[in-house]
Amino acid sequence: MAGYCNKILRVNLSNQTSSEETLDPKMCLDFLGGRGFGIKMFYDEVAPGVDALGPENKMMFFAGPLAGTQAQSFGRWKVFFKSPLTGGHFRSSGGGYFASEMKFAGYDGIIIEGKSEKPVYLWIKDGKCRFRDADYLTGLNCSDTHTLIREELKDMRIRVACIGVGGENQVKYAGIFSDRRTAARGGGGAVMGAKNLKAIAIRGETKVPLADPDGFREAVRRQMDHYRGDPHFQSFPNRGTQNPEFTLGLGMFPSKNFQEGFIPNWETIEGANFAPWRERHYACHNCMIHCGQLTKVRGSSAYVGHWSEGPEYETIWGFTGPIMNNDVGLTVAADHLCDELGIDTISAAVTIGMAYEMYDKGLITKEDTGGLELTWGSHTPILPLLNMIATRQGIGDLLAEGTRIIAERTGQGTAHYAIHVKGLELPAYDPRGAKAHGLNLMTQGIGADHNSGYAPQEIFGSPYHGQILDRFAVEGKGALTKRNQDLTAIHDACIMCSFPSILFFEDNLVMLGDLLTGATGIKEFSDGDYLWQVGERIFNLERMYNVREGFGRKDDVMPGRITQETLPAGPSAGITFEAEELLDDYYHARGWDLVTGVPSADKLRSLGLDYAVQ
Amino acid sequence: MAGYCNKILRVNLSNQTSSEETLDPKMCLDFLGGRGFGIKMFYDEVAPGVDALGPENKMMFFAGPLAGTQAQSFGRWKVFFKSPLTGGHFRSSGGGYFASEMKFAGYDGIIIEGKSEKPVYLWIKDGKCRFRDADYLTGLNCSDTHTLIREELKDMRIRVACIGVGGENQVKYAGIFSDRRTAARGGGGAVMGAKNLKAIAIRGETKVPLADPDGFREAVRRQMDHYRGDPHFQSFPNRGTQNPEFTLGLGMFPSKNFQEGFIPNWETIEGANFAPWRERHYACHNCMIHCGQLTKVRGSSAYVGHWSEGPEYETIWGFTGPIMNNDVGLTVAADHLCDELGIDTISAAVTIGMAYEMYDKGLITKEDTGGLELTWGSHTPILPLLNMIATRQGIGDLLAEGTRIIAERTGQGTAHYAIHVKGLELPAYDPRGAKAHGLNLMTQGIGADHNSGYAPQEIFGSPYHGQILDRFAVEGKGALTKRNQDLTAIHDACIMCSFPSILFFEDNLVMLGDLLTGATGIKEFSDGDYLWQVGERIFNLERMYNVREGFGRKDDVMPGRITQETLPAGPSAGITFEAEELLDDYYHARGWDLVTGVPSADKLRSLGLDYAVQ
Repeated sequence: MAGYCNKILRVNLSNQTSSEETLDPKMCLDFLGGRGFGIKMFYDEVAPGVDALGPENKMMFFAGPLAGTQAQSFGRWKVFFKSPLTGGHFRSSGGGYFASEMKFAGYDGIIIEGKSEKPVYLWIKDGKCRFRDADYLTGLNCSDTHTLIREELKDMRIRVACIGVGGENQVKYAGIFSDRRTAARGGGGAVMGAKNLKAIAIRGETKVPLADPDGFREAVRRQMDHYRGDPHFQSFPNRGTQNPEFTLGLGMFPSKNFQEGFIPNWETIEGANFAPWRERHYACHNCMIHCGQLTKVRGSSAYVGHWSEGPEYETIWGFTGPIMNNDVGLTVAADHLCDELGIDTISAAVTIGMAYEMYDKGLITKEDTGGLELTWGSHTPILPLLNMIATRQGIGDLLAEGTRIIAERTGQGTAHYAIHVKGLELPAYDPRGAKAHGLNLMTQGIGADHNSGYAPQEIFGSPYHGQILDRFAVEGKGALTKRNQDLTAIHDACIMCSFPSILFFEDNLVMLGDLLTGATGIKEFSDGDYLWQVGERIFNLERMYNVREGFGRKDDVMPGRITQETLPAGPSAGITFEAEELLDDYYHARGWDLVTGVPSADKLRSLGLDYAVQ
Repeated sequence: MAGYCNKILRVNLSNQTSSEETLDPKMCLDFLGGRGFGIKMFYDEVAPGVDALGPENKMMFFAGPLAGTQAQSFGRWKVFFKSPLTGGHFRSSGGGYFASEMKFAGYDGIIIEGKSEKPVYLWIKDGKCRFRDADYLTGLNCSDTHTLIREELKDMRIRVACIGVGGENQVKYAGIFSDRRTAARGGGGAVMGAKNLKAIAIRGETKVPLADPDGFREAVRRQMDHYRGDPHFQSFPNRGTQNPEFTLGLGMFPSKNFQEGFIPNWETIEGANFAPWRERHYACHNCMIHCGQLTKVRGSSAYVGHWSEGPEYETIWGFTGPIMNNDVGLTVAADHLCDELGIDTISAAVTIGMAYEMYDKGLITKEDTGGLELTWGSHTPILPLLNMIATRQGIGDLLAEGTRIIAERTGQGTAHYAIHVKGLELPAYDPRGAKAHGLNLMTQGIGADHNSGYAPQEIFGSPYHGQILDRFAVEGKGALTKRNQDLTAIHDACIMCSFPSILFFEDNLVMLGDLLTGATGIKEFSDGDYLWQVGERIFNLERMYNVREGFGRKDDVMPGRITQETLPAGPSAGITFEAEELLDDYYHARGWDLVTGVPSADKLRSLGLDYAVQ
């Protein structure tokens, strides 16, 4: 089929072999691509109970059916693995040019198995996969790793996905990095580090075949016209997601380790502060949005001269809210440092927020931190702490485990404010301030993920999202969350970027149908109902993977802080989070058993998932 | 003429204009290229008395007539400027791929004039020079500057020469950096910083024309056969110049700020220590030598995990000998840091050695250093000090001026151990242990430079250098030094790398003649006597540039420590450095006035330098 390369590269690190296999056409029809292929192949190939950091875990990198084409905003890639942070299936997504290059090299996906004895990196070109010594790259930060691989292979146009020191040291929330774009969440970097795989380098020159070049070209033209004609679209190139005032104004900007809903003097961290620091825009392959912001700190910040590509909203929050910091320059410096060390900013920030609270409560002292004083509002410990985490020095060795393990190891009631779902730390939306957001975080298979199942209906009023909903209401949020999650699963199967996904929302389906059918020739993809079923199928198979691992309703839980405390002040003050009521409503909408949280056999069969019925 | 591009690009930063001019054929004949073009054009164009850091100073970048061809080891470039460190003419030389790319873009040289109002970088391609905003690059280290420029211009194959923070802050010994190869000495980075020029980016695809392609190919084949057949040649790819034991064994490895001639337990810093740290080799464009060593620290060093491309002999010495440090891992870490900050390792190291002695003598204290304890043998202050120098923080602001200015500012006898000639800090050869080395350092126009006029006859016995000479003897060293200097001037006019220059020495002349005539068609270049005259012409015009600036015998001086003290122990103990006797002998051999040190009118006329007669 066109659009697809119809080829998967399978690599075994243990015996340094590789082979090619043909993409299963039925899998294309049933699961479309990306996130769909990921869960289908992972469910089929990885038996329950394997150690996430052992050789039996696999990593599956995918480019979507539209990657490498002229279609806009499909340049992202996804990597699948069992997460050392959650123990469940995981998908993490990165941008840049790696996905397109994978297609140019002739592959829809790359599956990594086993474990190398010594550090290696893969060099994939011209249908060959070479296993190259990566000993000399060990300990290097992510940007130097890119540079030295390109120099060694004498081709500066090679695309690289690599881990930093954090991944090498199996920091549980280490990510995978490609040209400063990051598949950050869930610990894919730790899995890669445990496999002794420092990087994947790839290069190709094949054009992606198209089933209907003229129809496809027209569809791309319509997509671009749509982009250009939309007033909301304009804000992305100008500021990306550098707009913390949105949730600050709603009092749901989690602060002081989720004890409060905004920070005092929040004008100091508003998006406007970044305006004079923005130097230029970056884009992924074939994307008009150019959301990447090259930001450099100026003015009176203690971090003048520091720069990063970013920070995005979550990172701006991560290094302000949780620790009550008002120097927004730190968000840039910490963003860059996390990118170089190769760790996820969200999990790092929430974990550090927890450490601040433990320090505040006297559970850890200056003796534990090597002299750092973790007092609310103090920003100076952050850069040293990030280095300690990535290298697992001192208290960094504990913090590298993430909030759930910290709570297990330290006891003394710390689980109450270990802010995670299923082990994955929460992002920058306080669930008490937006119930569908919270319900989604609670029920995503990968833990508290904000990228899939995001509920714009509670935050924005726009022609694409309908009238703005009562964010505090419980009623109807089950069905709403199911729909948002299934929609995102469709978008993720195409590996479309989250920005147009959230911005144009269900309106994307017609555009996706045109593009997918134009590229692949598969007529079914132009049928909206068909796509909705693909989305629901993906979500349910993901659930069944976790069920097979022992997950159920007992794991769809919010931390005690969220369910037992209310926010003390601001526009979301005094609101409770009705976790159980929301869950009942959601399971009902999903057709899942209310007691166990397991999809019913009928539901699975209706989605063609008979093989997943237990 | 073939070989040359016959075109110079002239850029005016003040009014953001550029123009092309034809290379003067007579200048090609008389001065050959590179270092020859540099002094001829600089002498003609830059009036005496201009401020080295003012807009009247110029920068002239040159690629040699063999750069960009298949000839081996001609991939280096030279940059000319009036030095803020010495006040005289300066030439600094860098490797990598920048020179070849300049030729591919169609230029033998690029002349930079004036001063930009705001930070800019130049983007040179397809016969156009664009002035691009470099505000966003300000404060960035050298490797990030490379990456971001390549990304901005969407061409990863662009070659870049840039400055780091050190150059921006006009550290007097800031250098210019291209893909980790450095034109480090003399403060070219400070001049570039003063001009608000962050970088030059260049790209081209033109082939270098050859006058006699067949003859040239044959000449290259003979050169390569010669390389391959030579047993001495083999050591360079294996270890570069990582062999401090050479001078350590001769007791002329300057230590404790030139108070001693070796360091105790010197087996800790021998080249053998680097062997397990070498990860791979790097080469400049078309060079079989591959002298570049990617080195990563392992084992018990305090700097485990640090890496650099290098360090070379001088840098190994710089961060061991002057401060009496035995942890050779520091040399790797400091090398990388200097490359990123954009400062010269030799001048930085000698300046820091002076600071250690001032600390030892109580002239500076912990209060001046921000708490750093500069005690002999302590390596922990070095990385912080290098950062302070590049950013001019605290005592770094003084140290950024180099040893001569420090002595002028601090007085109290510090000039006695400010180890420089004409303001340029000495390299890693104690003049008391090798008189021709010392005489050359004393008489080079650019100050204490070890790359030109190097005297292998005092160190190596080999078929190329004749019988080894008595390194302590004074007799004959005048004529020897003249010959070595003139030979190097020929090599430098071709911009041949110093390694084959020193290794094959005068044997290079036949090979150079074949290559030059094959490439350019100029028959004269195959005449050895003609080449010798070019070399002497260059050296004498350089002298006259400095004479015009007020230089003379009074400036050909060694620091008091070298002339008034002897080394206390080791194979060079008790030896004096007979500066005046050596100078008399040298001036005599040169045909220069013994009192003033000025070339005689006869000498100048005999070299066709009538216009330089005063």
